[in-house]
Amino acid sequence: MRVHPRRAGDFVSGALDRAGALDRARALDAEDPLRELRTRFTMPHGTIYLNSNSLGPPPAEVTARVRETIESEWGTSLSAGWTARGWLDAPERLGDRIAPMIGAMPGEVLVADTTSVALAKLLGAALASRPERRIVVSSTDNFPSDLYAAAHAVNRVGAGLRVVDRSDLPSALDEDVAVCCLSQVDFRTGALLDLPGLTSAAHAAGALVLWDLCHSVGVVPVECQTNRVDLAVGCTYKYVSAGPGAPSFLYVRHDLQETLENPIPGWLGHQDPFRFDLEWEAAPGIRKFLTSTPPVLGLSALESALDVFTGVAIEDVRTKSMALGSLFVDILGAADVPGLELASPASAHERGAQVSLRHPRASELLQSAARRGVVGDLRPPALCRFGLSPLALSYEEVFLGADAVVEAARSLR
Amino acid sequence: MRVHPRRAGDFVSGALDRAGALDRARALDAEDPLRELRTRFTMPHGTIYLNSNSLGPPPAEVTARVRETIESEWGTSLSAGWTARGWLDAPERLGDRIAPMIGAMPGEVLVADTTSVALAKLLGAALASRPERRIVVSSTDNFPSDLYAAAHAVNRVGAGLRVVDRSDLPSALDEDVAVCCLSQVDFRTGALLDLPGLTSAAHAAGALVLWDLCHSVGVVPVECQTNRVDLAVGCTYKYVSAGPGAPSFLYVRHDLQETLENPIPGWLGHQDPFRFDLEWEAAPGIRKFLTSTPPVLGLSALESALDVFTGVAIEDVRTKSMALGSLFVDILGAADVPGLELASPASAHERGAQVSLRHPRASELLQSAARRGVVGDLRPPALCRFGLSPLALSYEEVFLGADAVVEAARSLR
Repeated sequence: MRVHPRRAGDFVSGALDRAGALDRARALDAEDPLRELRTRFTMPHGTIYLNSNSLGPPPAEVTARVRETIESEWGTSLSAGWTARGWLDAPERLGDRIAPMIGAMPGEVLVADTTSVALAKLLGAALASRPERRIVVSSTDNFPSDLYAAAHAVNRVGAGLRVVDRSDLPSALDEDVAVCCLSQVDFRTGALLDLPGLTSAAHAAGALVLWDLCHSVGVVPVECQTNRVDLAVGCTYKYVSAGPGAPSFLYVRHDLQETLENPIPGWLGHQDPFRFDLEWEAAPGIRKFLTSTPPVLGLSALESALDVFTGVAIEDVRTKSMALGSLFVDILGAADVPGLELASPASAHERGAQVSLRHPRASELLQSAARRGVVGDLRPPALCRFGLSPLALSYEEVFLGADAVVEAARSLR
Repeated sequence: MRVHPRRAGDFVSGALDRAGALDRARALDAEDPLRELRTRFTMPHGTIYLNSNSLGPPPAEVTARVRETIESEWGTSLSAGWTARGWLDAPERLGDRIAPMIGAMPGEVLVADTTSVALAKLLGAALASRPERRIVVSSTDNFPSDLYAAAHAVNRVGAGLRVVDRSDLPSALDEDVAVCCLSQVDFRTGALLDLPGLTSAAHAAGALVLWDLCHSVGVVPVECQTNRVDLAVGCTYKYVSAGPGAPSFLYVRHDLQETLENPIPGWLGHQDPFRFDLEWEAAPGIRKFLTSTPPVLGLSALESALDVFTGVAIEDVRTKSMALGSLFVDILGAADVPGLELASPASAHERGAQVSLRHPRASELLQSAARRGVVGDLRPPALCRFGLSPLALSYEEVFLGADAVVEAARSLR
């Protein structure tokens, strides 16, 4: 496998034979402080699931938790559940459980809406708070949905969207920029952007930052507080494993909560929703960014998924995540299959939890891997993505996954 | 009980003694073509639940359906479920199942977001399509969340919001009005607005209408097509019984879908989301109003709730709904308890599925009713609301509910 030269890092080609790799995987499993967490997820028998970048696998407890919500909460408390079962407070309560995973403080995170709606809200709020600055900056490799929302948010207020190559970001940040809106992890390559550096650069230009944490939350310690991140959004259905279309979250740094206004106000973000005032009066704190009724079944599944993270230090998760990625990359590198290239940075320090490969017959490669029980996903034409969940995978499973990908690639020659 | 004079209709005071009312309820149950549907819902033992205006009770099948989605779909197909299990198409597929309930055509309804977000989308789209008209009209008794969304939507584009008494609506509709935004059923009194008449009046003034159907869907035949309704939104957690915070829906009449633009565009409303274009290109039809990932667990519960409506004519539902309301009103009227007033229109033709009562000690009255196993809800200071689900209630249960409310009111004297 050819590692793209400009990305070459700690990848050691040829240093690892198959037996050596298996030994290394087993040794890592034996020492893994997180290894018991693997039992907290259910996976179909015979499947090595390497696609948590798309959708995390179900926590083992999730059915029981959702069943309890339906039968013991909804079925017993009925409408009284809104208060008696804490449904109304769930957006803040679960936000407070996500907060430590992204280095935020209690009261800075709210679970609500979908990622794109949450992003539209925060972009709208940020643009309205900086009327003298009329540019939103983003990068060409940002997730397109973020660009669509941004393009519309700027059009609506007569501002402009400046979408540049990632390497041109520093020079794109000038005194016209209201917000710099980026994803921390590149959804195609898994490359980890320099969140501290880009946040500082944006702040130096007087701009706010809005980070999309969809591919970070649950695997990368974001350190929002340390890095003075202004705004962020993220989903919970990838490495958090809260289920297909699980609710998203938004983060607003505490000292910005007073000045920013929710551009899609709704009754549950009102100071006193049950007074049914004709006029909007924002609730204090992060609550004002809530619009409408929380999706209780989705929140229940999210609660179950967050239970798996209880007592787990996100730094330990990151350590395992990097080691899983290195094992995967090293096995593929050592196999040296012609046509197979590493599309991710070679250094684990420069990746999120995802390793991407490039192959001219990527679709066939993934089909062949799938026949061997290994699930990744395709970004046509040539990209294969493998998202390695540090909680839901053992090192040995990642060994088996990489081994099957090697076999699949060899079968295409 | 005093019926507010201007509302007096087919209420017949004193004509119905307790035994007569019970006989009438049992006779109606015996003839009820929908009576078997009562078994499709689970209710706590000993509870007469009259609060479906707030949250419908769980369909009996919902746990099994959601469990199947978690275990057999998510747990087995994992990320392949997006296509293999039809998750991606669910917003349109379930929209097509709601369509006949509101008199819409296939392809006119999409399940997505929350009601207030859906309303903000459609209002934004409508305002952008009528740049020469800068007023949104609504009424003081509209659901406040709709007014909050409307106030912000107009502010954003330099337009204005004209909120008038319901009786002044016809004169408020002039050539400046872009959209007339109303709820079909008054959330306080259950009064049914004249949707055909107000829609015609808005059209005569050249305005679009946007109807909030939260308290209509599943109980009132809205007839969107017949009435040439332009836009509508609604929730599915009241009379549709899809669960707390279940996904909402939006309706855009087919001939408006081409000209209206989604103001919160996202990747899943893109013509080809998986091409990951930098530029937004709207999907054809109603799909363009989708923004982001569908909430699969909530949609699964909704599917289960819609199954209960399969083969049920909404006209039959309305017939039973009116008869349930009349029974409830007649029993309360006949009891003639001092202090207790009917806050709803006396004629069933002028009500949705909800009967509201006024009492100076409304909170105590509801507590007393609750001790008798009857659940309604309070709108302080003096309003008690009883939402009568025609699918989830028998006539005899409504008799028992009304009887307990009478006893509760008498106990306060």
